[in-house]
Amino acid sequence: MASVDVPVALLGYGTVGSSVARFLEQSGDDIERATGHRLRVVRALVRDVEKEREFPAPDGVLTTDFESIINDPLIAVVAEVMGGIEPTGGYVLDALRAGKPVVTANKQLVAQRSAELFETAKAAGVQLRFEASVCAAIPVIKVLRESLVVTHVHRVLGIVNGTTNFILSQMEGGADYAEALAEAQARGYAEADPSDDVKGADAAAKMAILATVAFGSRVTLADVDYEGIEGITPLHVAAAREMDMVVRLVGAATLVDGKLDVRVRPSLVDKRHPLAAVAGPFNAVMLQGDAIREITLEGPGAGGIETASAVVADMVSVIGTTGTGFLQNDACWRSFERLSPGELRSPYYVNIHVDDRPGVLAHIAKRLAVHEVSVARLVQSPAEGGAALHIVLHEAPEGAVKAALAEIVQLPETHARPSIFPVISDRGVEELGWA
Amino acid sequence: MASVDVPVALLGYGTVGSSVARFLEQSGDDIERATGHRLRVVRALVRDVEKEREFPAPDGVLTTDFESIINDPLIAVVAEVMGGIEPTGGYVLDALRAGKPVVTANKQLVAQRSAELFETAKAAGVQLRFEASVCAAIPVIKVLRESLVVTHVHRVLGIVNGTTNFILSQMEGGADYAEALAEAQARGYAEADPSDDVKGADAAAKMAILATVAFGSRVTLADVDYEGIEGITPLHVAAAREMDMVVRLVGAATLVDGKLDVRVRPSLVDKRHPLAAVAGPFNAVMLQGDAIREITLEGPGAGGIETASAVVADMVSVIGTTGTGFLQNDACWRSFERLSPGELRSPYYVNIHVDDRPGVLAHIAKRLAVHEVSVARLVQSPAEGGAALHIVLHEAPEGAVKAALAEIVQLPETHARPSIFPVISDRGVEELGWA
Repeated sequence: MASVDVPVALLGYGTVGSSVARFLEQSGDDIERATGHRLRVVRALVRDVEKEREFPAPDGVLTTDFESIINDPLIAVVAEVMGGIEPTGGYVLDALRAGKPVVTANKQLVAQRSAELFETAKAAGVQLRFEASVCAAIPVIKVLRESLVVTHVHRVLGIVNGTTNFILSQMEGGADYAEALAEAQARGYAEADPSDDVKGADAAAKMAILATVAFGSRVTLADVDYEGIEGITPLHVAAAREMDMVVRLVGAATLVDGKLDVRVRPSLVDKRHPLAAVAGPFNAVMLQGDAIREITLEGPGAGGIETASAVVADMVSVIGTTGTGFLQNDACWRSFERLSPGELRSPYYVNIHVDDRPGVLAHIAKRLAVHEVSVARLVQSPAEGGAALHIVLHEAPEGAVKAALAEIVQLPETHARPSIFPVISDRGVEELGWA
Repeated sequence: MASVDVPVALLGYGTVGSSVARFLEQSGDDIERATGHRLRVVRALVRDVEKEREFPAPDGVLTTDFESIINDPLIAVVAEVMGGIEPTGGYVLDALRAGKPVVTANKQLVAQRSAELFETAKAAGVQLRFEASVCAAIPVIKVLRESLVVTHVHRVLGIVNGTTNFILSQMEGGADYAEALAEAQARGYAEADPSDDVKGADAAAKMAILATVAFGSRVTLADVDYEGIEGITPLHVAAAREMDMVVRLVGAATLVDGKLDVRVRPSLVDKRHPLAAVAGPFNAVMLQGDAIREITLEGPGAGGIETASAVVADMVSVIGTTGTGFLQNDACWRSFERLSPGELRSPYYVNIHVDDRPGVLAHIAKRLAVHEVSVARLVQSPAEGGAALHIVLHEAPEGAVKAALAEIVQLPETHARPSIFPVISDRGVEELGWA
C-alpha cells in the first residue's frame, strides 16, 4: 500500500504532547507498516508558542488558535494531552462535533464527563479512545474492548495508583508513612500536595473508567466509594507480613446479582495472589470473567513516555479502523443499579487495641456474633498499654463488620478506632500463613 | 448503524470450534455493539457430519466439502480451529488465495510456516490473525502489534507452557517429578504422551511466534534452542527455595546488538520477579521495551473456551478493520542474524556434586576462573557420598559456563553431570535470599 500522509493535531504540547510528536516522527515507519499511513502533527494547541520545548515543533505547528484545528478538514485525529477539565472538555466536544476522532489521556475528564463525550462522538459518527487515561502504557482498555468482547467480565481488581503502591512498598522495607511519602516525593512519584493520590481519588477515577468499560454501565467518580492510605502504620504492615500478606491500595469493581459496586480500599493481599507481586510505582489490573477465568496486566502506570506511547497506540487504532464502524459506540450501553456499599461481601482483617484483662475477648466476640460476623482466626499479642487483637473474619458484608466494630469501639476496654481491611486471596482465609 | 449479517466459516468443529460457534451465537449482541455486524457460522468443515457435537450446528452447516467454503463469495472470515499441519496448511493457503481473511489457533502451523502463510495473505490483500496460537486468551499478539507499535521491544520473557508450570508448582509443594506429572495427567493438564510439553518443544514454538512478532524478524521452531524439565529434581526445587527463588520453564527472546536469541530453559526465578508469581497451569509473558519499561500479561494459557474466546476476538478484529489496510502486513519485516547460542550472557546457578575432601573447591574455582566465570556466592552442603556445591555465578556467556563445567565434569572428584540454570532476577545476584 502506498503511504498516505495523515495530518493530525495535538491539544497540548508539554511532556506527553512532545513525546507523542517525537514518536510519530521517529517511529513513522512502524506506524506505516501497521496502518499504511504516516501520521504528521500539523497543529498543536499551546498557550505560549514562544516557550522552549523538549522536542521543538516545526515552524507553524504550534498555535494558540483552536479554531484552526477544527476548521482544517484534513486533520484526521485530534489527541488531547493538555489535561484539566476546562477548557479541555469544551475543546474535545468541539473537535468531536467537527467530525474529528479524538484520543484522550485525560482520566478526570473521562471519569467525570464520559456520557456527554460519548453522546457527542456518537452523534458525529467518530471514535473517542482513552487508553492513556488509565494506567498509561498498560493496554487494559483495548484488551477489555477488543480482546474480551465475548467475555462477561464480572470483577476488576486493580492496583491503579503508582504513588501509593510505591509508598506501601517502601513501608514493607521498614519506613513509616511519612518517610515513605518523603521518598516518593524525592523521586518524583508523588506531588508536593499528594492528596489526590494518597486519599484514593486518583485510583477512584481510574476504577470508574475501568468499571464503565468492563460492565458497560456508567460509573463516575462520584459513584466510587474510596479510602486512602494515610492511616496505614508500620503495625499494619507488620501484621500483614505475619499472615504472609502485603498491604496494597486495591480498587475493586464487582458485579453482584446485577448490581455493581466500585470501591478503593487499603487491603491485605495474599503474597500468593498476582497483585501482591506488584511492587514500587507499578500498576496491575486483574480482569475476571467467564471465558478467561482471569487475566492480569501489569506495568508502569504512569510516566510521560509511557502515556505518550498509549496515546500513539490509540491514534494508530483510530486510523486503522476508520470507516468500519468498529468501536464507535460508547463503552457504556446498559445501566446497573449500585449495590448498597454495606452489602459487598469479603473476608476481612481487623485490628483492635484493647485492655489486657479477662472478659474482653468475650465482649468483642459477642459483638461480632450479634452481627453474624464469624471469626476465622484470632491472635492476641501484647501491645502498648494492653493487647492487640488480630482477627481474620470469614466472608461477611462490610456493613455487618462495620456495625460490629462501631459497637466494639464503644466498649470501655477498647482503646482506639479499630482498623479494617478487606483480605484478597484465592485461598481460604484459614490457609493463610499466620500461625 | 444497522446490523449487517456477516457469514463466516470454521475449519474444524471440535471443542474449540463448537465453542466459537456458541460464542458467536450467544454473544451476538456484544459483537454487534463492537463491530456493527452479526457474525454467523454458515459452514464448518468436519470429517464426519454425523458425529455428535457439544454445541450442535444447525442443519446444513457441517460439511466435508472444503471447496464449498472458499467458493462462497459471501463468507467474510475463515477461522481455522482443526489443528495439525496438513491438510490444515493447504486449507489455510487456499482460503487466503480465495481472498478470505483467516484467523488461526494453530501454534505449530504458524511457528513452522508463517513466511509462506503471510506471503500468501499479502498477495491476496487479506488479514491473517493468530492470537489464539499463543497462550490462548492472553492477548499478547494484539498488544504487541497494536498497543506497542512504537515501542521497540528488546526482550520477551515467558512462561508459555501451562503443563510444565503446573508440574513445577506441584514440585514446589513437595512432589517429585513423576508424581507431579501423574497429577498433571490426572487433571487433564498433560497428555498421555507429555513429550511435547515436558521437553520444551511446545514452549519453543510459542516463543518462535512471540519473537517473530516482537522483533519483526522471522523465527521458526528450528531457530529456538530449547531444554525441558525432565531433569528437574526435588533437590533443584529445594536449592531454589533456599535462595528465595522458584524453578520455572522460561522462554527468553532477546535482541543483543542487532542479533537475536530465542531459547527455553528451566530457570531459577527470583520470588520478587513478576514471573515467579505465575503458579499452576497459568502462563505469563513479560514484554520489555523502550517506552514501556516492561508490561506483563498473565492468565490461563490453554483451554478450549479460552482459546475460542481468542479466536472470536480475532474474528471481531478482522471485521472491525476490513478495508482499512490495518495490519495486513506480515509481522516480520526485517532479518536479524542469530546470536551464537553460547554468547548470550546471564547470571547462572550451578549445582555440582563432589567428593568432600581438601582441594576440591580450589580445582573447581580454577576451572571457572580459566573461563573468566566469576563466582558471586557459594554454599557447600553435605550430600549423599560427598558434598553439594551451590554456586551463583555473575553474568557470563553461557558458552563460557558450559565450557568450565565440561572440564569440571572430567575432574575425578566430580560425581555427576552438574546442573546449570539461568537466574532471572531484577536484583543483583548478591542480594538474593540465600545466606
